[in-house]
Amino acid sequence: MSPAPRVSRRRLLGYVGSTGVGAAAGAGAVLAVGAEEAPPASSAAAAVGAPGRTIEPWGAHQPGVATAQTEVTELVALDLRADVDREALGRLMRLWTGDIEALTAGRGAPGDPAPWLSQPASDLTITVGVGPDACRPGLFGAGPDGFAAVPPMSRDRLQERWSGGDLLVVVAGRDGTTVAHAVRRLVADAAPFARARWRQAGSWNPTGPDGRPQTGRNLFGQVDGSGNPQPGSPLFDSTVWVREGRWAGGSTLVVRRIRMDLDTWDELTRDEQERSVGRALADGAPLTGGMEIDELDLSARSQGRLVVPVDAHARRAHPSLNGGRRMFRKGANYTREVETEQGVEVESGLVFLAYQADLLDQFVPVQRMLDESDQLNEWTTAIGSATFAVLPGFEQGSWLGEQLLA
Amino acid sequence: MSPAPRVSRRRLLGYVGSTGVGAAAGAGAVLAVGAEEAPPASSAAAAVGAPGRTIEPWGAHQPGVATAQTEVTELVALDLRADVDREALGRLMRLWTGDIEALTAGRGAPGDPAPWLSQPASDLTITVGVGPDACRPGLFGAGPDGFAAVPPMSRDRLQERWSGGDLLVVVAGRDGTTVAHAVRRLVADAAPFARARWRQAGSWNPTGPDGRPQTGRNLFGQVDGSGNPQPGSPLFDSTVWVREGRWAGGSTLVVRRIRMDLDTWDELTRDEQERSVGRALADGAPLTGGMEIDELDLSARSQGRLVVPVDAHARRAHPSLNGGRRMFRKGANYTREVETEQGVEVESGLVFLAYQADLLDQFVPVQRMLDESDQLNEWTTAIGSATFAVLPGFEQGSWLGEQLLA
Ligand code: HEM
Ligand code: HEM
Repeated sequence: MSPAPRVSRRRLLGYVGSTGVGAAAGAGAVLAVGAEEAPPASSAAAAVGAPGRTIEPWGAHQPGVATAQTEVTELVALDLRADVDREALGRLMRLWTGDIEALTAGRGAPGDPAPWLSQPASDLTITVGVGPDACRPGLFGAGPDGFAAVPPMSRDRLQERWSGGDLLVVVAGRDGTTVAHAVRRLVADAAPFARARWRQAGSWNPTGPDGRPQTGRNLFGQVDGSGNPQPGSPLFDSTVWVREGRWAGGSTLVVRRIRMDLDTWDELTRDEQERSVGRALADGAPLTGGMEIDELDLSARSQGRLVVPVDAHARRAHPSLNGGRRMFRKGANYTREVETEQGVEVESGLVFLAYQADLLDQFVPVQRMLDESDQLNEWTTAIGSATFAVLPGFEQGSWLGEQLLA
Repeated sequence: MSPAPRVSRRRLLGYVGSTGVGAAAGAGAVLAVGAEEAPPASSAAAAVGAPGRTIEPWGAHQPGVATAQTEVTELVALDLRADVDREALGRLMRLWTGDIEALTAGRGAPGDPAPWLSQPASDLTITVGVGPDACRPGLFGAGPDGFAAVPPMSRDRLQERWSGGDLLVVVAGRDGTTVAHAVRRLVADAAPFARARWRQAGSWNPTGPDGRPQTGRNLFGQVDGSGNPQPGSPLFDSTVWVREGRWAGGSTLVVRRIRMDLDTWDELTRDEQERSVGRALADGAPLTGGMEIDELDLSARSQGRLVVPVDAHARRAHPSLNGGRRMFRKGANYTREVETEQGVEVESGLVFLAYQADLLDQFVPVQRMLDESDQLNEWTTAIGSATFAVLPGFEQGSWLGEQLLA
C-alpha cells in the first residue's frame, strides 16, 4: 500500500510500456494497451511492471482455453438449484455474458458495487463449462460426444469436496485481486440459480527472467506443458475443439486436483527425478536430446537400456503409445493448509486441467494408461475430479450458450 | 502449461523488455534485467509480460520493507523449539541469510532440491522479524524501544490461529509459484529450530492498466496506501527505521488479519462508502479536493457539515489528530473458505501490515483512536494480531541479526 509516486511517473520513472500483441490464433482478439515512450536510462524511484493484455471475449471459441497460462487461476464449480429450468439457465447465461464482457474489458460488471476492482490489461479470461448432470433434457440437452465423468481409477483417492459440479467458471489473470473480484461478481450474480460447490485456486509462472513467455513449472520443479499441441496449430484445433453438432466450437475439460508429495520427491536423485518423466529438469528437453520443444525419442537406448524408461510418465502418456490420442493441458500450482488429526499440514499439488474434443476417447484411455503404470504415481494422488463441457464461444450481440438454450 | 513458442521469441514475438530501474531509495540496489530490442509492430503469437526486478538483499535495512507492493505476499510465523538458544539462533540466521541471498538472486537455496523454481527478476524480497517472546536474554535480547504485542482492543475478535509467533518471514514477489518455493525452503531450513505457527497469503494489484505503478486497492475497492510516507523521503525514514541502539536500521511490524464484510459494505451508497473514509473511490483523492497524493483538508465544510466526517477512518487515523504519529502501511487482500456450522463460507479481508520505528508510541495510539471511533469498524473486524521486530539489514559477507547475536 505504498502511495504512487508523487511526480509524473512518465518523467521520473524508468517506465517501459509493453504493447499488447496478437493472442494465440484461435483466441479472442487482443486490444493493444501500452505507451510509446522509450525508457530513460536510469531513475531515482521504483518502476516495475508492464501492462498485461485485454482479451476480447468474443469468437468461435471461449478465448480462455487457448490463451497462455497466467499467474493466477481460480475455479469455482457451482450446483444448480432444484427449480432451475432451461429458461432460467438462459437468464443466467445472459447475465454471465454481460459480466464477462464487462469484466474482461476492465469495466465493472453491470450493477457492480466495486467497479474499480476491475482493470483492463489484466490478462483476464473467464471460461464457462457445464457438468454432466446439467447436460440433460430440460437443461443444456445432451453434452458433446464422449462427455461424461472420468470413471474411477484404481489410484484415485477422491474427496467429494473437490469433485463434481453442474457449472464451472475458470477465471485466469495476472493478479489475485482482479481475479477475486471477477469471481465474486460471477458467483453473486449466479446466486438465484446456483450455489458454489467447490473453489480451487493456484498459481503459475508464465514469464521468464527476461520477460519472455515460458512454459512454466509445477511444484516438482518440472517444466510442465512442453508436449502440448501449440495453440493455433491444426493439431491443436483437432485436439481441442468439438467439430460438429450443437457443441461445435466448444470443448471438454477435466479438472483433477492432484496432491504431490514434495517431501519424498525431494529425496530422489536428480537422475531418478528426470527418468520418472523422461525430460530434463533444467530446461524440459527430452532426455534423448534436443530442446524443450522437441519430441521424445522413445526408442533411444544408452548402454542397452531405454533412455526414457518403460514406465516414465511422458512415455506412458505419449500419443504414440495411445493411438495418437492427445489433450491440451494447463494447470495451477496450489499450496493449502489442511487440518489433520496430527494438526495442520501443508498440502501441495497441481490443479490439473485437460482440454480435449472427446473426453471418453481422448482423456480417459490416457488416464487409464497412467493409472496402470506411471512412475509419477508414487508421488502424486488424485484427490478431486470433475468434468465440464466447455461452451462454444459467442459473438458480440449474442450470448454464451445461445446455441444450446435458445 | 502451454508450451513456449517454437521459434525464436525475440524474432517472432512482440516482446518488450522492461529495464529494471532503481529501487525506492533506502531499499536494496536493483540489478537491471532486460532486453534492448524494440518491439515489432505486431505479431502472430502471444507475448505478454515484462521481467520484474532482482532486488539485492543487502543494505542498512531489509529491502522488503520499503520496496513497492507486489502481486503476491506470503507470511509465515514460526515458533522456536524449546531447546533453541542464542547460538542456535545464530545458526538459523546464517542459514536464512544464505537462503535469502540465493533465492532473491534467482538461484536455488544452498542444497535446494528444486532450484529451477527460483527465478531472477521475480521482484522477490524476504523480510525477517522477531516476535516479542524471542526478544529476551539468551535469545535476541531486548527488542527495540516500544516493542510489544498490541494490547487488546475492544473490537478485537482475535483467534489464536492467526496471532503471535516467535519469528516471521514475509515473502513478496510477483508470482505465487516462486514465492511458494521460497517459503518452502525457508520453513524447511528452519525445521531444526522452529515450526510454522500460522501462514497468511494475499494479493495486491500494484500495476495500472498502462503498466505504471499504482497504489492499489483493498477488497472494498478503496485505493489504500495514499496517506503513506513516501519511501526514501526523510519522513519515511523517521517514521519507519529504528535510529539508535542494537536495532538501528530495523523497524517494527504489526500484522493484523482484518475480516471485511463485503456483503454489507456493498449495500452502502457510494456517498456513504466515500464518507466512511474521507477519500473518493474512483481515484483515492481527498473528498476535500485535489489528487490522490494530496492531504485531506480536515476542516473543510460543505453546506455547514464537515466534508470528512468526525468519525471518518482517514480523519481518525490522520497524523494531525494523533500528535503527528505515523506508520507505513502495506497489505494483502485475502479470500479464504472457512468451515462454519452452516457450511463452507467465503471470508474476505486484508492482511494489514504496519511498519513503524516505535510500536507503542506510533501504532498503538492510532489503533486505539480507531478502536474508539471509526466508521469502518462496522464492516471490519481484527481476527488476528501479531507483532515483530524487523531485523536491521545486513551487508554482503555479514549475516542477518549479526549485530544482535554475535
Ligand atoms: C501432478 C500430476 C502430474 C505431473 C506432475 C505431470 C508432469 C508432467 C511432465 C513434467 C511432463 C513432461 C513435460 C510435458 O510434456 O508437459 C508431462 C507430460 C504429459 N503429461 Fe503429465 N503430469 C501429471 C499428471 C498428468 C495427468 C493426470 C495426465 C493425463 C491423464 C497427464 C498427461 C500428460 C501428457 C499427455 C503429457 C505429454 C506427453 C508427450 O506428448 O510427450 N499428466 N506431465
Ligand atoms: C480492513 C481495515 C482497513 C481498511 C479497509 C482501511 C482503509 C483505509 C483507506 C481506504 C485509507 C485512505 C487511503 C490511504 O491513505 O491509505 C486509509 C488510511 C489510513 N489508515 Fe486504514 N484501513 C484499515 C485499517 C487500518 C488500521 C488497523 C490502521 C492502524 C491502526 C489504519 C491506519 C490508517 C492510516 C494511518 C491512514 C492514513 C491517514 C492519513 O494520513 O490520511 N488503517 N485506510
